[in-house]
Amino acid sequence: MEASRPQVQVQAQAQAQAQAQPKPKEAKLWGGRFEEGVTDVVERFTESISFDKALYKHDIMGSRAHASMLAHQGLISASDRDSILQGLDEIERRIENGEFNWRADREDVHMNIEAALTDLIGEPAKKLHTARSRNDQVLTDFRLWCRDAIDKILVSMKQLQVSLLTLALNNEGVIVPGYTHLQRAQPVLLQHLLLAYVEEIERDAGRLVDCRARMNFCPLGACALAGTGLPIDRFMTSEALGFTAPLRNSIDAVSDRDFVLEFLSVNAITAVHLSRLGEEWVLWASEEFGFITPSDSVSTGSSIMPQKKNPDPMELVRGKSARVIGDLVTLLTLCKGLPHAYNRDLQEDKEPVFDSVKTILGMLEVSAEFALKITFNRERIQKALPAGHLDATTLADYLVNKGVPFRTSHDIAGKSVALCTLKNCQLLDLSLDELRSINPVFEEDVYEYLGVENAIQKFVSYGSTGSACVASQLDYWTKKLEMK
Amino acid sequence: MEASRPQVQVQAQAQAQAQAQPKPKEAKLWGGRFEEGVTDVVERFTESISFDKALYKHDIMGSRAHASMLAHQGLISASDRDSILQGLDEIERRIENGEFNWRADREDVHMNIEAALTDLIGEPAKKLHTARSRNDQVLTDFRLWCRDAIDKILVSMKQLQVSLLTLALNNEGVIVPGYTHLQRAQPVLLQHLLLAYVEEIERDAGRLVDCRARMNFCPLGACALAGTGLPIDRFMTSEALGFTAPLRNSIDAVSDRDFVLEFLSVNAITAVHLSRLGEEWVLWASEEFGFITPSDSVSTGSSIMPQKKNPDPMELVRGKSARVIGDLVTLLTLCKGLPHAYNRDLQEDKEPVFDSVKTILGMLEVSAEFALKITFNRERIQKALPAGHLDATTLADYLVNKGVPFRTSHDIAGKSVALCTLKNCQLLDLSLDELRSINPVFEEDVYEYLGVENAIQKFVSYGSTGSACVASQLDYWTKKLEMK
Amino acid sequence: MEASRPQVQVQAQAQAQAQAQPKPKEAKLWGGRFEEGVTDVVERFTESISFDKALYKHDIMGSRAHASMLAHQGLISASDRDSILQGLDEIERRIENGEFNWRADREDVHMNIEAALTDLIGEPAKKLHTARSRNDQVLTDFRLWCRDAIDKILVSMKQLQVSLLTLALNNEGVIVPGYTHLQRAQPVLLQHLLLAYVEEIERDAGRLVDCRARMNFCPLGACALAGTGLPIDRFMTSEALGFTAPLRNSIDAVSDRDFVLEFLSVNAITAVHLSRLGEEWVLWASEEFGFITPSDSVSTGSSIMPQKKNPDPMELVRGKSARVIGDLVTLLTLCKGLPHAYNRDLQEDKEPVFDSVKTILGMLEVSAEFALKITFNRERIQKALPAGHLDATTLADYLVNKGVPFRTSHDIAGKSVALCTLKNCQLLDLSLDELRSINPVFEEDVYEYLGVENAIQKFVSYGSTGSACVASQLDYWTKKLEMK
Amino acid sequence: MEASRPQVQVQAQAQAQAQAQPKPKEAKLWGGRFEEGVTDVVERFTESISFDKALYKHDIMGSRAHASMLAHQGLISASDRDSILQGLDEIERRIENGEFNWRADREDVHMNIEAALTDLIGEPAKKLHTARSRNDQVLTDFRLWCRDAIDKILVSMKQLQVSLLTLALNNEGVIVPGYTHLQRAQPVLLQHLLLAYVEEIERDAGRLVDCRARMNFCPLGACALAGTGLPIDRFMTSEALGFTAPLRNSIDAVSDRDFVLEFLSVNAITAVHLSRLGEEWVLWASEEFGFITPSDSVSTGSSIMPQKKNPDPMELVRGKSARVIGDLVTLLTLCKGLPHAYNRDLQEDKEPVFDSVKTILGMLEVSAEFALKITFNRERIQKALPAGHLDATTLADYLVNKGVPFRTSHDIAGKSVALCTLKNCQLLDLSLDELRSINPVFEEDVYEYLGVENAIQKFVSYGSTGSACVASQLDYWTKKLEMK
Repeated sequence: MEASRPQVQVQAQAQAQAQAQPKPKEAKLWGGRFEEGVTDVVERFTESISFDKALYKHDIMGSRAHASMLAHQGLISASDRDSILQGLDEIERRIENGEFNWRADREDVHMNIEAALTDLIGEPAKKLHTARSRNDQVLTDFRLWCRDAIDKILVSMKQLQVSLLTLALNNEGVIVPGYTHLQRAQPVLLQHLLLAYVEEIERDAGRLVDCRARMNFCPLGACALAGTGLPIDRFMTSEALGFTAPLRNSIDAVSDRDFVLEFLSVNAITAVHLSRLGEEWVLWASEEFGFITPSDSVSTGSSIMPQKKNPDPMELVRGKSARVIGDLVTLLTLCKGLPHAYNRDLQEDKEPVFDSVKTILGMLEVSAEFALKITFNRERIQKALPAGHLDATTLADYLVNKGVPFRTSHDIAGKSVALCTLKNCQLLDLSLDELRSINPVFEEDVYEYLGVENAIQKFVSYGSTGSACVASQLDYWTKKLEMK
Repeated sequence: MEASRPQVQVQAQAQAQAQAQPKPKEAKLWGGRFEEGVTDVVERFTESISFDKALYKHDIMGSRAHASMLAHQGLISASDRDSILQGLDEIERRIENGEFNWRADREDVHMNIEAALTDLIGEPAKKLHTARSRNDQVLTDFRLWCRDAIDKILVSMKQLQVSLLTLALNNEGVIVPGYTHLQRAQPVLLQHLLLAYVEEIERDAGRLVDCRARMNFCPLGACALAGTGLPIDRFMTSEALGFTAPLRNSIDAVSDRDFVLEFLSVNAITAVHLSRLGEEWVLWASEEFGFITPSDSVSTGSSIMPQKKNPDPMELVRGKSARVIGDLVTLLTLCKGLPHAYNRDLQEDKEPVFDSVKTILGMLEVSAEFALKITFNRERIQKALPAGHLDATTLADYLVNKGVPFRTSHDIAGKSVALCTLKNCQLLDLSLDELRSINPVFEEDVYEYLGVENAIQKFVSYGSTGSACVASQLDYWTKKLEMK
Repeated sequence: MEASRPQVQVQAQAQAQAQAQPKPKEAKLWGGRFEEGVTDVVERFTESISFDKALYKHDIMGSRAHASMLAHQGLISASDRDSILQGLDEIERRIENGEFNWRADREDVHMNIEAALTDLIGEPAKKLHTARSRNDQVLTDFRLWCRDAIDKILVSMKQLQVSLLTLALNNEGVIVPGYTHLQRAQPVLLQHLLLAYVEEIERDAGRLVDCRARMNFCPLGACALAGTGLPIDRFMTSEALGFTAPLRNSIDAVSDRDFVLEFLSVNAITAVHLSRLGEEWVLWASEEFGFITPSDSVSTGSSIMPQKKNPDPMELVRGKSARVIGDLVTLLTLCKGLPHAYNRDLQEDKEPVFDSVKTILGMLEVSAEFALKITFNRERIQKALPAGHLDATTLADYLVNKGVPFRTSHDIAGKSVALCTLKNCQLLDLSLDELRSINPVFEEDVYEYLGVENAIQKFVSYGSTGSACVASQLDYWTKKLEMK
Repeated sequence: MEASRPQVQVQAQAQAQAQAQPKPKEAKLWGGRFEEGVTDVVERFTESISFDKALYKHDIMGSRAHASMLAHQGLISASDRDSILQGLDEIERRIENGEFNWRADREDVHMNIEAALTDLIGEPAKKLHTARSRNDQVLTDFRLWCRDAIDKILVSMKQLQVSLLTLALNNEGVIVPGYTHLQRAQPVLLQHLLLAYVEEIERDAGRLVDCRARMNFCPLGACALAGTGLPIDRFMTSEALGFTAPLRNSIDAVSDRDFVLEFLSVNAITAVHLSRLGEEWVLWASEEFGFITPSDSVSTGSSIMPQKKNPDPMELVRGKSARVIGDLVTLLTLCKGLPHAYNRDLQEDKEPVFDSVKTILGMLEVSAEFALKITFNRERIQKALPAGHLDATTLADYLVNKGVPFRTSHDIAGKSVALCTLKNCQLLDLSLDELRSINPVFEEDVYEYLGVENAIQKFVSYGSTGSACVASQLDYWTKKLEMK
């Protein structure tokens, strides 16, 4: 194992020594017992401000509720509260106008805002952290952020459902081959297939709604891990922030991340659904399938091949599902084996969530847009339908109706297909004599069952691709999605 | 990249040729148009009977419901139905008595049972598959199996909660250090900490209940992917099998696996919770922590070191969480990018689910048992409590009560700790003069706040570790878990 | 979160009590200081014999080497050694004849074999574990097992390469569309595409060879974690077992699992390669692509649709890649965050490795067989080639040869394609006048560049799909794979 | 599944319509046959410039080599080449000075640089893309980037090894408990334990070196997927860029991502190693273990608990291992099931690699720094050593030396430990009579084996924790790491 490595110059010790000289710095807010500041390497490695500033709005929201409660409970004065609230308004304004100076040496979003508040209003700011720790504070922020993110995703899901339904309504009567094993199986109405996606997304939305309800409890007031001896009112802050109730156990409140594990699981399942849509539409856009033509406005070309027109957005929808899955794995692995209560590892909980949410929103949005920008090539689809004996199962059903046991029917239909293969024709091209040579049960009415258009008319079971069933499903969804 | 490989003899072509001679075999049930059977390599690679026979009970259950419905709808005769039902009874009996001959050349559990039924009752068996495909059949079986599995896990979760609560009730008044960053933070009641786990498991149970409700819809009658032209009654079979309703869309019904993706996600989150319990109890059982002594009946020894007594079950609980996570990743990756409807890839959906369920059940069960077999070393815990200044935050709260802004209080308490470090003593060993040398606000009543026992009495906030709060939580859980 | 769960009956306490009665049992080999045996729940949860018996051959191999060394060093007598070696022979014989009684209460493969040896030869067996712990023993077994597994996989990889090359040699001159974005891009020789897989597998083999070399160091003699005070000769056992050398650090030797992490990583990468092959061949077997017809002997049918013939083996190759990835995730997550040295979590290291190896071997084997059982539909492929303007890039190259800057050439070729789309024709159908209307640079010789057969002749760069390049690659691989 | 969702307003159709209006834009470089630009949603979703600009240096490097080769082959003129080279210099200068205007509408780093070059030098820029596609271009860039990243990681690995060795050299003679199952097992030299990490990192470095060698082949000239008809010299560009040789197969060259899959696998294994270091040092810094005191400069405090001093960097090292694993999962899942050749999904290959590299570099760097900033609490460690009967195995070895079979020795030593537990004493506190009451074989010389210091002296096997063995290992590593 004595690997011959590329030659590298290491003066690790000297270098480490150099890195080690801690510079004089602004005192940390927790610095009471500390004699020197952290080294640059540590500061760079442990900072979170580069990403957790995304929580600023919810951090300020939480601080407002907290300050109001502290005043209501007599823990700070009304005038301190007012200073704090005004200071927070000003800070929010600065952040939104890009005038706020985020500082890495102030570690995170909480400390940045609190320190800026102190710069701004002085003494009263020092009372804001009364009966609060960053542990419960960050979780309050994070739950609020996730709740908002869920609401946004729910909107995008509905938009995608509406787009799919619109596409379905615009393509009435189109029959496409249904596949199993990517082999042609039975004919289905395109509308029926599009509604399958609508069903999938609907369950994803249901999962998100459940996740939201389970997440919507308030950690604020759990403090570091044990609660506090100060007379706070957790129900007041919980209500002010729109939570269902405060969490019941302070240790649980600051330690667990199951609410984001559940959230990212739901996103991963949604991403898998969308990856299947991506795969399918990429197939359909190929020369070989040729079912759809995406408009130029959702396609891209090649830097070298002049004739290319690629369905990139749906390829990326398929590809980006991988990172949503990867984000979930990161979070599960992160939490595995950590003892109670808070551990610094958990600072790593945010980026996978931010990435998962951003990605899933983009995937939903672009899929909705793509759906509105494709044209089905009806003629070409129609022309290709005869291939693949899509009516063979209907033929077997015909035989069952004639009293032939199913397994025998299946066998007879199989032999009929074999005959077609030999003659290089379709089932409906076989003469009655030819059919009867296989089994005498065939009668003239068999031709009412053959051919794709006939076949599709025969489906009657609930949930099937029969025209009436699909029409009633379309009706159901149009109402449910409030499209009328 | 011209790797120098270990010398290997390959006569691949000849060998492949040899493998390729398909042997004469029993005709497959789908064999109508096929001229030769599959090769041994293919048969071995594609078989599923070695694992999907676990579904036999639910497969028979589904077939009973299906046969009854077929008869009710006039698709088979009453006497055919009776033959089928009796045949299924006999097959179930044989399987449970180990008298059933599972055959790999019959591919899977469905074909094995149907073929055995044909061997047993002849012609009527050929009608059982009327208006049914293996695609909807296997999903009916699988959903039924998962529903049962969820119910078993829910029982095991409750048992673990009861064990934890029992452990808590048996250890009233024990104070342990609460940790953040695995550094001593604040004192907490052991009961409070144990209840944190009860809360976590409760949410896991809630997730399972939601998953069960969303899963409990019936695919039977979706057939291959498009439904059927035969006049079946899907509501009848759905109701007979205890489902809420039939699934609305036949393509969705046979294509999607989100119900198991959700199930395995919930298991993965539960596994993460249990891995944390495992880590914590392994720590507590160490010489260094010394909080607990597991009984010999849940410990193991060493083959070489005579003095060892290891908390193996909880290490394995921690370790086995990895495979529950791995099972989820397998299933997510499996489903990614598959087009509609059924693809053979999906045969791989079962083993990860079986493994996840078996593992999570074992983890819950052994944790519940371990909880009942540990003794808390009260004296040793007590002796160790003074270390770590667990009362420092209570001291800061004291100062806040005296009107000192929190940030200043935090700073004063920090300096008091620094003085203790210098003097190598506890906070309660500092004289009032020493404290006043740091800040004159200290008064005699400060000593009511110092020391771990005093500190714990001061917690009053909802959800905190204060004795009254914890007592009311214990009461809540005792009732909820029906332990009285 | 008060989930309304399905009603479950729990008498957890009573039940747990009942489970808790440890039964009188055979004393464990480590039982010296223990007063009671483990409970059934614990025994069931912690046993490994159900899977680690797969190591029996390597465990016996290791014990042989160890006993011989102990005798050589005078730690046991020659006659003890002989008894041990004979006993091990007999045990191996029994295992291979299915006469060995594997006992779960004897925990694992090591204890089963040692206890059986004691039953068989008495006192000398008690000396076998001298200067050895299960920690170093199991790792010796495991490394030997993995080494063998790697050698098997290398053989299967070569077989697949040979099959692919055979397929290539049998299909000289076949041109297929090359795709990017699954859109037709440029024409390629089928042989060239098949060789791309051969290259991929070759790198996989290279990774395995590197992994094998890094793995092939001997942990035996590291004992529990610290080595031993007895005068053993680790170089002697290392050599006897075919290792390169003993591992240098005893703690490292028993703690680390990087050798299997690397192994499973390589398998995962190989699995990804094979999943791409699977996807591609499933596509090619579809009605829409229609490039290949797999023989009946590697296809399966449908239980409901009589006309179906599915390329199941390749779908499963694609699907099974997911479990190889999942196995890797399990192992990475398992090892994350474990302190030194051995932890019981690590017992979970074996099943993912066994599963990964079995799966990858099956995937390679079935792919090799499938490759020998497909027919390329030359006529159909040929007929489809004109679609997609595969010669457009060659047209741009033509223009570059005429001195037109590439970006301008690309633009001209793009406009030519646009004209074809308008006229619904191919590039070679455009008249010289039409081409010149786009740009006057075109001359009569342009027609030597148009059409797929012309286009393919134009490729000349190293590694390209030009006939000469491909021929020389075929030659290279034929020699390298020793096919002549 | 009719989830009651939070009320959301959707005017998806109208909105989608609005989004759909493609704005007039700069023509894409591939725009020849396109009639409208992509929509904003698509542009935002498909852009890669926000992250792939990290490749700018290697993109320019590749273009330089390509332009020189084109001129050498007479495909462009010398003066065009010079214009291009000067233009590229200027662009590189602007980028490094922050004066370059990265434009999302120019999609990616390649198009941004080429378009800027055209702005700058006009016509000659249009010839740069001759005989090149973005497909081979981006892979050339990416392999160059990864090669550099590997070299950086190798340096950081060596720095960590040097730091660990420095720490070892500074703590000669310190004995710590060795653990298995986190239970005290046997005494080990601290130096021995630290060297175990050095071994692990050495194998990680070996894996990187292998990965680098396998990666270092040149895709440039593979063009879109099929090579080119223009007379390029791929060996010339390959050599100019420091590659070993051009890749042999153009389809393979643009399709496969195994080089980054391997890279991220190595990183994941390294991350697992570092997570174990993190776990261990977090344990050691706890009040309960108390082995080490990290300096203030690598510790952080608490916003609420004044006494806290937390080893955050090592917690984050442990935590960040999760994202390195997640990145690998993302990439494996991404590549799974993609057909040849390039698919747009593969654009997602870069961010996980960038994140993995950045994270692993940070983890290595901060671990190296932490190692130089901890103090071992020798006295406290020494005081704790007697607990846990670390010398029990040495006692068993003593008995083996006296001719007692190992299993009997193990049993006798176990009983001796049991007697100690009863008497609450150490093994060395047992009188010879007491020992003889267990077994008469004990003699006075037993006391040379008892006690931790004696025990450690007894280890003699190669690779053991015996002082001489460890000294020779230290010597080996000091030389190998060129520290003298």
